[in-house]
Amino acid sequence: MVIVTKISIEQSHLDAMVEDFRAKGLEVDIIRGKDSIALGLIGDTHSLDADRLLLNPDVERIMRVQEPFKKASRKFHPQKTVVKVGNASIGDDTQFAVIAGPCSVETKEQILTVANGVKNSGASILRGGAYKPRTSPYSFQGLELEGLELLKEARAATGLPIVTEIMSPALVETFDRDVDVIQVGARNMQNFDLLKELGKCSKPILLKRGLSSTIEEWLMSAEYIMSGGNSKVILCERGIRTFETYTRNTLDLSAIPAVKKLSHLPVVVDPSHSAGMSWMVEPLSLAAMAVGADGIIVEVHNDPKSALCDGAQSLDLCQYENLMQKLKAISVHFGREC
Amino acid sequence: MVIVTKISIEQSHLDAMVEDFRAKGLEVDIIRGKDSIALGLIGDTHSLDADRLLLNPDVERIMRVQEPFKKASRKFHPQKTVVKVGNASIGDDTQFAVIAGPCSVETKEQILTVANGVKNSGASILRGGAYKPRTSPYSFQGLELEGLELLKEARAATGLPIVTEIMSPALVETFDRDVDVIQVGARNMQNFDLLKELGKCSKPILLKRGLSSTIEEWLMSAEYIMSGGNSKVILCERGIRTFETYTRNTLDLSAIPAVKKLSHLPVVVDPSHSAGMSWMVEPLSLAAMAVGADGIIVEVHNDPKSALCDGAQSLDLCQYENLMQKLKAISVHFGREC
Amino acid sequence: MVIVTKISIEQSHLDAMVEDFRAKGLEVDIIRGKDSIALGLIGDTHSLDADRLLLNPDVERIMRVQEPFKKASRKFHPQKTVVKVGNASIGDDTQFAVIAGPCSVETKEQILTVANGVKNSGASILRGGAYKPRTSPYSFQGLELEGLELLKEARAATGLPIVTEIMSPALVETFDRDVDVIQVGARNMQNFDLLKELGKCSKPILLKRGLSSTIEEWLMSAEYIMSGGNSKVILCERGIRTFETYTRNTLDLSAIPAVKKLSHLPVVVDPSHSAGMSWMVEPLSLAAMAVGADGIIVEVHNDPKSALCDGAQSLDLCQYENLMQKLKAISVHFGREC
Amino acid sequence: MVIVTKISIEQSHLDAMVEDFRAKGLEVDIIRGKDSIALGLIGDTHSLDADRLLLNPDVERIMRVQEPFKKASRKFHPQKTVVKVGNASIGDDTQFAVIAGPCSVETKEQILTVANGVKNSGASILRGGAYKPRTSPYSFQGLELEGLELLKEARAATGLPIVTEIMSPALVETFDRDVDVIQVGARNMQNFDLLKELGKCSKPILLKRGLSSTIEEWLMSAEYIMSGGNSKVILCERGIRTFETYTRNTLDLSAIPAVKKLSHLPVVVDPSHSAGMSWMVEPLSLAAMAVGADGIIVEVHNDPKSALCDGAQSLDLCQYENLMQKLKAISVHFGREC
Repeated sequence: MVIVTKISIEQSHLDAMVEDFRAKGLEVDIIRGKDSIALGLIGDTHSLDADRLLLNPDVERIMRVQEPFKKASRKFHPQKTVVKVGNASIGDDTQFAVIAGPCSVETKEQILTVANGVKNSGASILRGGAYKPRTSPYSFQGLELEGLELLKEARAATGLPIVTEIMSPALVETFDRDVDVIQVGARNMQNFDLLKELGKCSKPILLKRGLSSTIEEWLMSAEYIMSGGNSKVILCERGIRTFETYTRNTLDLSAIPAVKKLSHLPVVVDPSHSAGMSWMVEPLSLAAMAVGADGIIVEVHNDPKSALCDGAQSLDLCQYENLMQKLKAISVHFGREC
Repeated sequence: MVIVTKISIEQSHLDAMVEDFRAKGLEVDIIRGKDSIALGLIGDTHSLDADRLLLNPDVERIMRVQEPFKKASRKFHPQKTVVKVGNASIGDDTQFAVIAGPCSVETKEQILTVANGVKNSGASILRGGAYKPRTSPYSFQGLELEGLELLKEARAATGLPIVTEIMSPALVETFDRDVDVIQVGARNMQNFDLLKELGKCSKPILLKRGLSSTIEEWLMSAEYIMSGGNSKVILCERGIRTFETYTRNTLDLSAIPAVKKLSHLPVVVDPSHSAGMSWMVEPLSLAAMAVGADGIIVEVHNDPKSALCDGAQSLDLCQYENLMQKLKAISVHFGREC
Repeated sequence: MVIVTKISIEQSHLDAMVEDFRAKGLEVDIIRGKDSIALGLIGDTHSLDADRLLLNPDVERIMRVQEPFKKASRKFHPQKTVVKVGNASIGDDTQFAVIAGPCSVETKEQILTVANGVKNSGASILRGGAYKPRTSPYSFQGLELEGLELLKEARAATGLPIVTEIMSPALVETFDRDVDVIQVGARNMQNFDLLKELGKCSKPILLKRGLSSTIEEWLMSAEYIMSGGNSKVILCERGIRTFETYTRNTLDLSAIPAVKKLSHLPVVVDPSHSAGMSWMVEPLSLAAMAVGADGIIVEVHNDPKSALCDGAQSLDLCQYENLMQKLKAISVHFGREC
Repeated sequence: MVIVTKISIEQSHLDAMVEDFRAKGLEVDIIRGKDSIALGLIGDTHSLDADRLLLNPDVERIMRVQEPFKKASRKFHPQKTVVKVGNASIGDDTQFAVIAGPCSVETKEQILTVANGVKNSGASILRGGAYKPRTSPYSFQGLELEGLELLKEARAATGLPIVTEIMSPALVETFDRDVDVIQVGARNMQNFDLLKELGKCSKPILLKRGLSSTIEEWLMSAEYIMSGGNSKVILCERGIRTFETYTRNTLDLSAIPAVKKLSHLPVVVDPSHSAGMSWMVEPLSLAAMAVGADGIIVEVHNDPKSALCDGAQSLDLCQYENLMQKLKAISVHFGREC
């Protein structure tokens, strides 16, 4: 960490600061410039609170040389983390995990049809929303506990592990018992109370990136979960908010190599929510594999009214089968199997 | 609401859609263009789920003519809402509420000194953080329940009502009993489970705008609280995330006249968190009054080490006194008292 | 176009508006709602100036049903445009164009070495900056005309067509005579005077997307060039500004399928400028092919000091050769040749 | 400047870097950390090209301690710059400049009516667009040279100095001769060729902030003009692009105190373009004065059809008169006259 102070700082104040850092076990190197003084701190600065340091009126700026995350950092944990869920090994460079299922669990028939469909085409995990975060209080909020039960039935029928979103700390115990992967949605990425509770879980956490979060903030949220004792975190890039209105969000595929450089955690891509248009799911899924993601999480819907191949926002089972064929075809070039 | 469909839609599908809308009590007007067909829906469309409509492959676009919020809307509630807290009437056009206090409650001595100080200069409500949302799990997380107790002591000593931030639905009962205004932080603006619980409270809610939220999303979060039965919502603009890095966030003062046009709810401004620099607090506070805000919430810190007038991020008591003098001086031109 | 007016509009004003639209050859359909009136305009509304319409105090909102671009639109020109440059056919679904070369032309030796190197590995066009847009007036501004001459020498020596950036309308004649593709940089995407001049050129224009432009604005800039008479526009996605600071810009790969749906123009990807890190170029280039781009434009640098394979921001010739091998290997799955 | 290198850098490479910096007259201080090495450079680092330094594969990060601008910096020029235009002294803390006039010059009658109107209410400079940057090639592009002539007539008739926007380097000579202040629009803030030409002018330049520019980039564009020899730059905050769609742009009033801290240049606010709604102009103008701006530039329109007081986007003469009254009333509290 480099701390820049005003050139006008009194010598006694400067001495006090330096003393304070040394008392914390840090080495301090002082660089006197023409307009400012820079203090180079050597040692473990993770516990320093930059906001607090800035309260000092002599301090002009603080520049971190190291990332603020530690347990999530690849520097301190060079080997990739592999999270095992059913038959899937998410984070294993030779596999490409496909998580598929409907946006919301609607009926028993629906979830069973979709679950069987995606299993046949080759999904490794079943997704489905029971609790839905909705911008409007007047929109459908999900089947809640009933939805969770239907997901468990679908798991029993197909053998697929299930992943579903949690919204409240009060439900952590239930989810930890009943589901195989607990999903944290984008809007809750910085719901720190929820993250703390999830740190005590035994189940893997699928942590979606917030709508306008930086990669560093995302990894800091993973750090919250990991510092609580749960190291099984799967990151999920799902699109960020930009000025573009044609797509609902902008899928940040460059975040994948970035995250893989900075962290040892597995990272998957959600091509459905980002674009908000079914015809974009296929090219974005292929690009996700090409850019190095460990898998995708994709919405597949089963609409009895509009049979055959003509869904809208989600893929239908026929489109999903096509996508899997294409993914399998190119996977060999990337040394992965799906 | 206007729904645009493909020109190629089959007549039977179009008829079915129209029938469906009419069954919901809406009038439907059909405009056939050269490249598309537009359906104009007349009546109360608040309950229509736009996402669901877009699942229909014939639908190209949905354009809302009305805002999606109702209880928060000025159209349906032309008179301004006034929230009474102690002696303050927030939302009353003849008053300007000043909420002041430290970022975090640290010690009994600190909170009492600050509380007495801001009371003497003319604050109407005392603020102070007991539970702190921190990006890093390694940063100070607040004194929690102990902080709440200290705030209550400060209230007893000064008579000032207190406002503090809530982070977990599990604490709603405690807060509803113990504090006078419950604050929802920017990162929890879309923590829908928390909002639902707060809808059942009897105390006013100070709802901060999310870091990258639109005004519409902010009002939809107010709608969540109001639709649960609690209509005492005070909006708080605290800066949004932009590309600017010199200031921590960018205070969106144009949101104030916008919100006052769209909603009847009172709206206050936080000039401390947005800028992150104490020397910006005064000009931004004066601008907040000039632009029409109903009040401000400002950080005042009492640092025993750096006595006198030289704080950094927060105002010290001397700077706060100066600010109050200037606010009072210009308030008469805006027909307000503070 | 749908025009929403206040419900309180006087009948005579409404009649005048409707009359005005009909005089312009448009059909007008009037939908009376409870809180507002919507006018559905049928016909060619491209020439209507929405800003002007909003000057009318009775008008509340204008909603476009059609895109504002016409010559760039796929609706009016369903067949893809193919731009031929040397041996490359950019926009042809069976080809993948690779444009390569240094960020800046520095010396004769440098540009010749790089040109020969990329030619041997399989580039179809040589890139190189002669005029450089620099944020600081104190940074290297390029070799200017001398750089242009060196590019021409490299073309003569290798047979590769050349592309370089233009910054001033005054140089359009020179560029139209001397280079094979004229590049418009991100910062000049809305330099409308320059676009108008380029509309009169005979050479293809490589139009980079602005740092915070929407896809619609980008296509409107293409429309400027095309409406001037030059229909040979190649779009280039080069990353947009987001809150992410780890990467210099965020490559928006979802813009590729979006642009291909909206427009018939070819679109290529710049994986070098977006990320700003050489080790990201390979995964982003592979993803660009997977997502459906018509090619890439990539920086290749020849640093005599740091021989072998260890460049920093640009690829060196050895890394470029590796990239070409990988692109060729997967291209067959996408029905393209490169 | 602090340069962070990999801990694995070879000693000979490190020595070479250090030697290189010393040869440039800089002192170098070396801080060896556990995971990296930091070089603190002392002296004038303005001429160092950070992009070039990053080409070195041993370099991990570069952190600037000083701002990259110099002539525009308040550190090197503590006294505020005052730009005199007619009777106005823009940047003088005892004055508040009001620049007013129509968006576009339309007819002789229009510009004369508006010019006389704003003069009577107390404007110090007349604005009016002759060359208009329009997103669509099909929109009205301004009266161009004819508009310039009409502005000159209005100046002759009223004595008000005129400001109008330039879009092309080719017109710099004409503008330098004919107008009193030359405006650079937001979209041309980084049209570096234009900025270079304006650096040779004798007339003041009104430099609008780009739609998504940082304050630093804005001041770097001022630096371009100043480094060319023209130090009379007036900055103009006109709103930045954010996710908010209710307002056209988000007026960044916190940029005013920020700019005044960083630079000695005068700064004015455009409340018309940012909001895009006439009823927001008054509160935003009052807030601009309260936050410390040196003036405003406001759109006033004269629409013969909709006489009296009911304009839409621009103020009409009656609303403008009201605004001036309110500005005058509060100006005394800010020690300014307008």
